[in-house]
Amino acid sequence: MRHPHLKQRFPSLGEPPGSLLPEGNPPPALSRISLIEYDAAQCRETVFDSLQQGLEYQPQLPMLWLNVYGLTDPALLQAIGQRFRLHPLVLEDILNSRQRPKLDDYGDYLFIATRVYRYQGDNQYLRPDQVYLVIGSNFVLSFQSQPLGVFGMLRERLVQGRGQLRQLGADYLAYSMLDAIIDDYFGVIDDFNARVEQLDKLVLASRDRFVLARIQRLKQDAMRLRRSLVPLREVLNVLTRGEHAQFQHGTMLYLRDAFDHTLHLIESLESAREVISGLLELYMSAQSNRLNVQMRVLTVITIIFMPLTLIAGIYGMNFDNMPELHWHYGYYAIIGLMLLIAVVLGLLFWRRRWL
Amino acid sequence: MRHPHLKQRFPSLGEPPGSLLPEGNPPPALSRISLIEYDAAQCRETVFDSLQQGLEYQPQLPMLWLNVYGLTDPALLQAIGQRFRLHPLVLEDILNSRQRPKLDDYGDYLFIATRVYRYQGDNQYLRPDQVYLVIGSNFVLSFQSQPLGVFGMLRERLVQGRGQLRQLGADYLAYSMLDAIIDDYFGVIDDFNARVEQLDKLVLASRDRFVLARIQRLKQDAMRLRRSLVPLREVLNVLTRGEHAQFQHGTMLYLRDAFDHTLHLIESLESAREVISGLLELYMSAQSNRLNVQMRVLTVITIIFMPLTLIAGIYGMNFDNMPELHWHYGYYAIIGLMLLIAVVLGLLFWRRRWL
Amino acid sequence: MRHPHLKQRFPSLGEPPGSLLPEGNPPPALSRISLIEYDAAQCRETVFDSLQQGLEYQPQLPMLWLNVYGLTDPALLQAIGQRFRLHPLVLEDILNSRQRPKLDDYGDYLFIATRVYRYQGDNQYLRPDQVYLVIGSNFVLSFQSQPLGVFGMLRERLVQGRGQLRQLGADYLAYSMLDAIIDDYFGVIDDFNARVEQLDKLVLASRDRFVLARIQRLKQDAMRLRRSLVPLREVLNVLTRGEHAQFQHGTMLYLRDAFDHTLHLIESLESAREVISGLLELYMSAQSNRLNVQMRVLTVITIIFMPLTLIAGIYGMNFDNMPELHWHYGYYAIIGLMLLIAVVLGLLFWRRRWL
Amino acid sequence: MRHPHLKQRFPSLGEPPGSLLPEGNPPPALSRISLIEYDAAQCRETVFDSLQQGLEYQPQLPMLWLNVYGLTDPALLQAIGQRFRLHPLVLEDILNSRQRPKLDDYGDYLFIATRVYRYQGDNQYLRPDQVYLVIGSNFVLSFQSQPLGVFGMLRERLVQGRGQLRQLGADYLAYSMLDAIIDDYFGVIDDFNARVEQLDKLVLASRDRFVLARIQRLKQDAMRLRRSLVPLREVLNVLTRGEHAQFQHGTMLYLRDAFDHTLHLIESLESAREVISGLLELYMSAQSNRLNVQMRVLTVITIIFMPLTLIAGIYGMNFDNMPELHWHYGYYAIIGLMLLIAVVLGLLFWRRRWL
Amino acid sequence: MRHPHLKQRFPSLGEPPGSLLPEGNPPPALSRISLIEYDAAQCRETVFDSLQQGLEYQPQLPMLWLNVYGLTDPALLQAIGQRFRLHPLVLEDILNSRQRPKLDDYGDYLFIATRVYRYQGDNQYLRPDQVYLVIGSNFVLSFQSQPLGVFGMLRERLVQGRGQLRQLGADYLAYSMLDAIIDDYFGVIDDFNARVEQLDKLVLASRDRFVLARIQRLKQDAMRLRRSLVPLREVLNVLTRGEHAQFQHGTMLYLRDAFDHTLHLIESLESAREVISGLLELYMSAQSNRLNVQMRVLTVITIIFMPLTLIAGIYGMNFDNMPELHWHYGYYAIIGLMLLIAVVLGLLFWRRRWL
Repeated sequence: MRHPHLKQRFPSLGEPPGSLLPEGNPPPALSRISLIEYDAAQCRETVFDSLQQGLEYQPQLPMLWLNVYGLTDPALLQAIGQRFRLHPLVLEDILNSRQRPKLDDYGDYLFIATRVYRYQGDNQYLRPDQVYLVIGSNFVLSFQSQPLGVFGMLRERLVQGRGQLRQLGADYLAYSMLDAIIDDYFGVIDDFNARVEQLDKLVLASRDRFVLARIQRLKQDAMRLRRSLVPLREVLNVLTRGEHAQFQHGTMLYLRDAFDHTLHLIESLESAREVISGLLELYMSAQSNRLNVQMRVLTVITIIFMPLTLIAGIYGMNFDNMPELHWHYGYYAIIGLMLLIAVVLGLLFWRRRWL
Repeated sequence: MRHPHLKQRFPSLGEPPGSLLPEGNPPPALSRISLIEYDAAQCRETVFDSLQQGLEYQPQLPMLWLNVYGLTDPALLQAIGQRFRLHPLVLEDILNSRQRPKLDDYGDYLFIATRVYRYQGDNQYLRPDQVYLVIGSNFVLSFQSQPLGVFGMLRERLVQGRGQLRQLGADYLAYSMLDAIIDDYFGVIDDFNARVEQLDKLVLASRDRFVLARIQRLKQDAMRLRRSLVPLREVLNVLTRGEHAQFQHGTMLYLRDAFDHTLHLIESLESAREVISGLLELYMSAQSNRLNVQMRVLTVITIIFMPLTLIAGIYGMNFDNMPELHWHYGYYAIIGLMLLIAVVLGLLFWRRRWL
Repeated sequence: MRHPHLKQRFPSLGEPPGSLLPEGNPPPALSRISLIEYDAAQCRETVFDSLQQGLEYQPQLPMLWLNVYGLTDPALLQAIGQRFRLHPLVLEDILNSRQRPKLDDYGDYLFIATRVYRYQGDNQYLRPDQVYLVIGSNFVLSFQSQPLGVFGMLRERLVQGRGQLRQLGADYLAYSMLDAIIDDYFGVIDDFNARVEQLDKLVLASRDRFVLARIQRLKQDAMRLRRSLVPLREVLNVLTRGEHAQFQHGTMLYLRDAFDHTLHLIESLESAREVISGLLELYMSAQSNRLNVQMRVLTVITIIFMPLTLIAGIYGMNFDNMPELHWHYGYYAIIGLMLLIAVVLGLLFWRRRWL
Repeated sequence: MRHPHLKQRFPSLGEPPGSLLPEGNPPPALSRISLIEYDAAQCRETVFDSLQQGLEYQPQLPMLWLNVYGLTDPALLQAIGQRFRLHPLVLEDILNSRQRPKLDDYGDYLFIATRVYRYQGDNQYLRPDQVYLVIGSNFVLSFQSQPLGVFGMLRERLVQGRGQLRQLGADYLAYSMLDAIIDDYFGVIDDFNARVEQLDKLVLASRDRFVLARIQRLKQDAMRLRRSLVPLREVLNVLTRGEHAQFQHGTMLYLRDAFDHTLHLIESLESAREVISGLLELYMSAQSNRLNVQMRVLTVITIIFMPLTLIAGIYGMNFDNMPELHWHYGYYAIIGLMLLIAVVLGLLFWRRRWL
Repeated sequence: MRHPHLKQRFPSLGEPPGSLLPEGNPPPALSRISLIEYDAAQCRETVFDSLQQGLEYQPQLPMLWLNVYGLTDPALLQAIGQRFRLHPLVLEDILNSRQRPKLDDYGDYLFIATRVYRYQGDNQYLRPDQVYLVIGSNFVLSFQSQPLGVFGMLRERLVQGRGQLRQLGADYLAYSMLDAIIDDYFGVIDDFNARVEQLDKLVLASRDRFVLARIQRLKQDAMRLRRSLVPLREVLNVLTRGEHAQFQHGTMLYLRDAFDHTLHLIESLESAREVISGLLELYMSAQSNRLNVQMRVLTVITIIFMPLTLIAGIYGMNFDNMPELHWHYGYYAIIGLMLLIAVVLGLLFWRRRWL
């Protein structure tokens, strides 16, 4: 059993805070930057191939969503930071691949760090991915390491003009992104629950020691998911208090709804944790039960055979004067006696349910 | 052991919030809508067979209770929503069959989500059912998936004019509905306690492994009930603070009483959880006790028979010069010695209480 | 093991709140109502035999203490309620024999529900009894199911004019009643502690399985006492905040003292719970220790006898050419060898402390 | 194992609060009252032999420290109470030998109850002692049951004029007393930690059952110390808020320091509790380990000897036609076979580390 | 297993608070005092060899960082205290080598106590080191027992003029020091996690008892780190509230960032603690599993050999009339029967997976 989440890369000792060094997971092959401009009537998407191209571009429509993924190039980030006047700490946080979910209010814009998870293919590890949002009055920047994953459907809705996404402002777009992240958790917790149920069936049937290791891993998965969801809940809780100018009053109801969903997710995790700890108890008890059965069998067999062996031993003694030995039916009588003893003891144990 | 509550259907990924898709349990055969109008003097009940019929109907009396069950038709719900000017999020919540108990204040009306439970027939699963209330200044809407169940007696009292239900306003009706829901919990927790007591008797008597699985299930039932009751308590706690215009001052005392009842229920559940965890300890200890008894028996039997078998073995040796073998009473002496050893060891163990 | 506190009778489903149906324990043979009137100078006690008699009576002195016990007659309670203008919910609470300790402020008077406990005779159950107080500006009503028990000494002090009870107002009488209830808890927790100590002595000595059941029961008793004391502490905490007009400033110090006593009681219970969970661990360990001892004995005996039996078996073989068999002292040599092996193994185990 | 702290004497049932009955531990032979008067320049100590003598005495210097120990005489206390105008509840609390640490503000003076502990001689019990302080604007009264113990060094510093004790007012003296009490805890927790370390060494070495009982006792000691320190921390926390006129602003920094020390002590206890619960786990595991070792030995020995015994048995059979028996080297071959089997099995177990 | 953190030296009983006695770990060979003066343009470092030299020195530049290590000389500290007008309690705290992390506001300056940790060489103990900061408006004093360790890189950045350290005031220097301390924790927790992972691999493989002792030690390390980090988080939390004049508004964002890092560290520790408690469960279960395997083997071997031994015993009996003995192939038939029984039983156990 390995604990991948214990291996965390931290800021190197003594570096000045705010210095931009890429950290964390190996970078994907290529960074990709796409800009979606929109107003109530239209929507235009531009994908930038080079930093230069991006710096020269002048957007035409009032609302902007800049979506960046696989970003590991400090220079690129620096350029974006200058364009949108971001604080160096924001840039440092974005480069750092292990950030707790949090909300920082920098006055002109909000910085929100969140994390999503994915169960990967055959190996059973829960892979985290950081998602960062910068929410200004008329723009949203989103940063993640994998292409569009979480926001794919949202981009489609925006481009196709479905729902009221274009009518409402940047705050509704930001809410929709948080909502997409929460929906993503529903998916991964579904996966997680499926694993729990699957393990549940194994616990009583199997005897192998790896059941326990798998229970432990699921327990840790639950902890990790919880540790990402609880601060996310706090972020939403803070947002619903309505103290941030970026979010208008009308969006509050939606944020409150998203907040309720995080509560729901956290309760679902609590539920799963209890099931898992029940599995642990079942496993322990099954182990002890098996020992009980083995010992019962050993005891019964020993008790039945010991007297028989003793009798055989007695009539194997070489005393001169052992009258039974000379009776014609002595041998048959003794074999009969042995059978009788075995049957009587067997019945006895059967009645006491030891067999 | 299956964990039905782990299988939850969540909003599908990326759908715009507020879109109306029916979710959750399979629908009952038919939706049913009934409207009860009343004032202090009279009360009239109308059952609608079609949406059209309902939309055309004009109520005559000032107070309205619209009771809807089995609702899975988004169009129908949309119509009701327009008639009473409900926010899309309310409609979405009502269609979602897995909603945490909560209270949302939408200004003109309050939306309260609650959940009730039922132990079903032979299979032992605790089946949840959502109950939603929308409380306006002169109307109450109630939504549930099963016909009238929880509110049956309440409807009767209203129709027959018993109690002060008609004299007091919509807030008293709403309180009475919350009270009926709480009463329902008293019933299901009674059922739950009966199961705990029944299991209590089984723990020491039985040896089967399913006792443990049943203990685990009861533990999870307790958790689920608790997880529904605690937010319900919070809803009542918020209501008793008297900040909602829908509830008049005179109803506060009743709400406080209902709040006390939820406290009582939660404590009763805590109590049951402690009993259950005591059962777990008893079960574990009974298991270990059984092992102890078996090992004691094995040890005693082995200790008694081993020396006897050795003696028999010794006198089965074929040495030329073994004088005892030639004594006339040698055989009888040795058999006597064996009996003596067996009796002495038996007494010894009996005095040490190993037998 | 039965859990009497799981069997609770709850309000019947759907009844209008405030309807007066007697509930809970079977009634004592007779209700009894006594009225004590007093001022600083004198004190008069009247016992009423019938409802009519009570309704007609006009008290002469300014301070009133109406003490009712065994009350299960709704009509009687209704009459008292009308005379002192009590809210229907108060009357409902008094008839309900399972009320959480609480304080309700009805403006003109305070309603306090408390609970006392008694260990009964030979059977070991902790029997609860409800005590209700209604505290007005110049009267105190007390309701309980058993005759005077808790307030016996208080009544005597009042009648005999001891202490400053008559000089101070109704609030000091009410305080004295709460103090008497707390003193009662000191008594029952003394009893409880005696039981814990008694069990402590049994745990290591005895092997019977009922020790565990008794540990579990004591644990549950501790929980029940705690669950009554914690809300009682809250009642006193609220009273000491001095927001209730019924209690004058001078009485605050006494209430704070009573509050300290409840803290003390709760800590004493915590202490006992830790002792009990220590007992559980001792019991479990004693069980496992016993298994250890048995297995050690089994192992030692087996190891000593197995080689001896093998040797005897070897010299019982029927090979033609076994020179030892024909040595004159062969038999004695082998017996000597067996003794030697037994002694050496015995010493070995003795040195390793296995014997 | 006895739990001395479970035996607590409580106020007798129904007595009027404030009545002065001595309670608790048996009194020391003699009460002793000493008065220290001082100002910045001088300091005078007077010891009173009789109550009369004390009542007549008129102090000359502005600051007073009246130190009383072994006080069990209600009349004496009453006299002191009248002289310093103490509330009856203060006097009752002082006579009660089991008082939770607390701070009561009586306006003119503060009443502080604290508790100190001592490990006594050979028997290992933690003996509590109550220390009460009454802090007025120019006097401090201290009450304890043992002679000067805790305040010995403080008295010396005051008499010898060391430090700034005489320069600063009664509040600094009171602070110094609290500090002395906290220092005393540092001592007793040192003792406690020494016991924990001592037990740590025993756990793996010893097999006796009393290790567990001692672990349990230490756990309870930790609880008791904690239960005295936590309210003491609260007392200091309240004092540092600076709402009490008796303490001047300059003393606040010192009180905050004392508050930090109580935090430190409580953390040290937490630490010790974790070590103790680790000891419990080690003990349990050592027990189970020992069982494992025994069973391994039993298994190995049984597996080695069983086939050998069977072989010996086979060649002890009396069939007419058993050719091996007649081979000249048959006996030696079989003995060789037995040795071979034993060696091979032995090596097998040795390689699997069962030996 | 020793618990070095239980051995703490506390202030000696009854000493006046504020008296300067060196305490704690043995002093390093030599104290060392270095002063760094700087402004935005330049930076000068001076190392003092004697107290006299330091007292005479007059700094030229506005910002001062006085870094003291290995300080155990009360006279020296007294001199520093007078120069910077420090309160005696600050000096006492600095001499005390066991101080909880805390923040004290003395008006003109802030006093911050923190603690760092180091895993030392081969022996596995976590060695604590105290670091004290005094933060004034234009100076920072730092005290630690080991040379520059934590602040080495920071000093270099300051001297070389890297980053914005010189441009910003003393508050940014103080923040940078706190940041360096937090970075140090990232390092030690990395070490700690490496140990946890290393142990993880040992748990299932090894059987030695010291695994458990090592698990216990890691658990205690986690506690100790946590106990230092939680109050450090509180210190930063208080600082970010911005109520201290020493820290300017611009530094708040950086402090908040440092605060987030402490949250991250604490969560990482929580994570590790859960992994460790999972290890404990794995260890316990592995132990019980091994017992299970042994018992299974014992049971199987016993069951197979017992009947065979009985058969051999039967045909070793000496009855006159045992026809089988005289059959020519009797011996071979019996040997065949024995083999048959062994094979059948073996198959049976193999199918039930007991082998």
